[in-house]
Amino acid sequence: MNDTLLTGISQLATPRPGPQSGAAMRELTVLEDAALLVKNGLIEWVGPASAAPAAAQTLALGGRAVVPGLIDPHTHAVWAGDRLRDWEAKLGGATYEEILSRGGGIRSTMRATAAASVPELVRLARPRLQALRDSGATTVEVKSGYGLDFDAELRMLQAVRELQAEFELIPTLLIHVPPEQGRAEYMQGVCNDLIPRVAREKLATAVDVFSEQEAFSVEETRQMFVAAREHNLHLKVHSDQFHALGATELACQMNALSADHLEASKAKQLKALAESNTVATILPGVTLHLGLPAAAGRQLVDAGAAVAVGTDLNPGSSPLFSMQLALALSVRLNGLTPAEALTACTVNAAAALGLTDRGALVLGQRADFLALHSQDWRDLAYVMGLNPVRDVFIGGVKR
Amino acid sequence: MNDTLLTGISQLATPRPGPQSGAAMRELTVLEDAALLVKNGLIEWVGPASAAPAAAQTLALGGRAVVPGLIDPHTHAVWAGDRLRDWEAKLGGATYEEILSRGGGIRSTMRATAAASVPELVRLARPRLQALRDSGATTVEVKSGYGLDFDAELRMLQAVRELQAEFELIPTLLIHVPPEQGRAEYMQGVCNDLIPRVAREKLATAVDVFSEQEAFSVEETRQMFVAAREHNLHLKVHSDQFHALGATELACQMNALSADHLEASKAKQLKALAESNTVATILPGVTLHLGLPAAAGRQLVDAGAAVAVGTDLNPGSSPLFSMQLALALSVRLNGLTPAEALTACTVNAAAALGLTDRGALVLGQRADFLALHSQDWRDLAYVMGLNPVRDVFIGGVKR
Ligand SMILES: [Zn+2]
Ligand SMILES: [Zn+2]
Repeated sequence: MNDTLLTGISQLATPRPGPQSGAAMRELTVLEDAALLVKNGLIEWVGPASAAPAAAQTLALGGRAVVPGLIDPHTHAVWAGDRLRDWEAKLGGATYEEILSRGGGIRSTMRATAAASVPELVRLARPRLQALRDSGATTVEVKSGYGLDFDAELRMLQAVRELQAEFELIPTLLIHVPPEQGRAEYMQGVCNDLIPRVAREKLATAVDVFSEQEAFSVEETRQMFVAAREHNLHLKVHSDQFHALGATELACQMNALSADHLEASKAKQLKALAESNTVATILPGVTLHLGLPAAAGRQLVDAGAAVAVGTDLNPGSSPLFSMQLALALSVRLNGLTPAEALTACTVNAAAALGLTDRGALVLGQRADFLALHSQDWRDLAYVMGLNPVRDVFIGGVKR
Repeated sequence: MNDTLLTGISQLATPRPGPQSGAAMRELTVLEDAALLVKNGLIEWVGPASAAPAAAQTLALGGRAVVPGLIDPHTHAVWAGDRLRDWEAKLGGATYEEILSRGGGIRSTMRATAAASVPELVRLARPRLQALRDSGATTVEVKSGYGLDFDAELRMLQAVRELQAEFELIPTLLIHVPPEQGRAEYMQGVCNDLIPRVAREKLATAVDVFSEQEAFSVEETRQMFVAAREHNLHLKVHSDQFHALGATELACQMNALSADHLEASKAKQLKALAESNTVATILPGVTLHLGLPAAAGRQLVDAGAAVAVGTDLNPGSSPLFSMQLALALSVRLNGLTPAEALTACTVNAAAALGLTDRGALVLGQRADFLALHSQDWRDLAYVMGLNPVRDVFIGGVKR
């Protein structure tokens, strides 16, 4: 690819390469009347339009705001079946037990996902990933976790691998739902069989554990983290969604990439996150969909943590198909400022995936960026129910 | 136009013609494998595909859910200027006084709107109305109310009139912001000059008053309602947004079409609404954008009121450009069920505009309907951040 100069940029807004913690999260660079040079998929130059270098070709954006491509650091975008009946029943007053007795709940998603072939999983996930991309997500994490057994888990990761031909995806092995029987054998299998195999076949770059009263204990999480580290996989955790049991502190101690959810985190967990390299990933779609308390985004930033935001796209607790709306919701529900939210959805989300090569529009970073319909980058956070993203560029190429 | 038969409807979901109150709000008719016959812009027949009549032409939808076109009964879609700077300042901790001292607040919108010509107002409103239509709104109410003087108010309504060539719009004269000086003369002017003129020139079908401590008193609202009624205009009110002062009860007594907002309504106001013909219009976009309490949608339905939902699209308190998302938010934030939300956004929203010819897919109603991407109508309420509406039909014509 030849070098391309992008002109007609009314505003170029970017955080510095990340992660950025605490007060630094709101320190954006905003250039008015800017230009951007792309070469071999990377950013070669950024500056005022008046000082732009010559280039083989020029692309005029017509006076639009440009921001880095968004990064969705937490999705469960591969699933089969749907949860519409569960949802309607719950809203109509059914209890969780009643929903389970009718064959609903997360295990219905697991049964449907386990019954689907890899091509079927690919076909179902594709429009979801397309929706996320249209909403501005240029890199998307996708977790396994709906497998009824290890084979089903591996099929989910194989579906992600196939979709990597079309999308920039980061796969994570999620240990999500404990087995109904044989917990000790299951733990041994995860540590001695599943994790080594996923590492060997390079089917995921991280292991994530759902640590909660009804799921895996902090001690079980630690055991799986140890196995993951032995196989050079990054660590992530679903922690403090309902109870702060200690998994956030464990993640910080073990230098996990991120601790995600954090709705029930208290001062102790905020402090642990602020003093660690672990990114605090918050998920406002769950808050909105389930009507549960919001993670303390404002307090996390004020405490000095590096906060990221994700959609948590999944059929049970977050049918949120837009990274832009996740960003917009983090301002309304978690108290981030628009600048903090942009940092959270770019460089900090990248850090939550172990990536440092993207998220900021500076020399040498990947040329993943968005041109908005608006001249003002703040419309990215302000607008609700309308996609403010006009063009999505990945590696300098308009998709 | 010849008659057209729509086939390939996996599900056709519709409320009965409205308004529907209380428990009747959740009584949808859901036909599986249905067909729909359109003639001269109206619905000529609805029933099972196996019993469909012959027609001059057939349009196959390919197995999609069909629902009535949504009706947005509350917008301020005509404005100039923007409030991005105000919003960012507020999120950064600025007080309302600081924002005002920097020239922000609602009066900045009024100054910008007053300075804009009718063609400029048309140009600015068009993409907003297009976004609402894309989101499924086949009829949209638009209020004046940002005029610095009566001439500016009339220009807003003239802009709506021009846009009626492109969109199905219902214009409302909103008396919104009291003058900084000369309140008594202003009231006289509204009652003796503005309202008669708007009625004479048929620039609006209703008069709406913002009744609140910082705006117009209940007694002032009553005076304007009397003037509106003398000129055969319908009545609407912004009431109980922050304080339940009595305007909701006044609206119910005077048979207003709707009382809108209701975030601060108490049992007394719920009872008044339930016992009247006045529709209770709730606005979840404001709740989400401002982080204020939600109107008690669940309790309103349970009390027996007819509840409608609107976007309240406006730059200061609800930058919500999607009627579908308003519907989806009313389930999450106001406690409606998906079926109640569909009724709220169709026949009840029509009633809030004095319309009985639309909102239900039954013989004789306007052929305003939506084909979804999904086979299941509940996706209309479930999906967030992705537009589930594939095709918008207005008067039987695909737009
Ligand atoms: Zn998750
Ligand atoms: Zn309003």
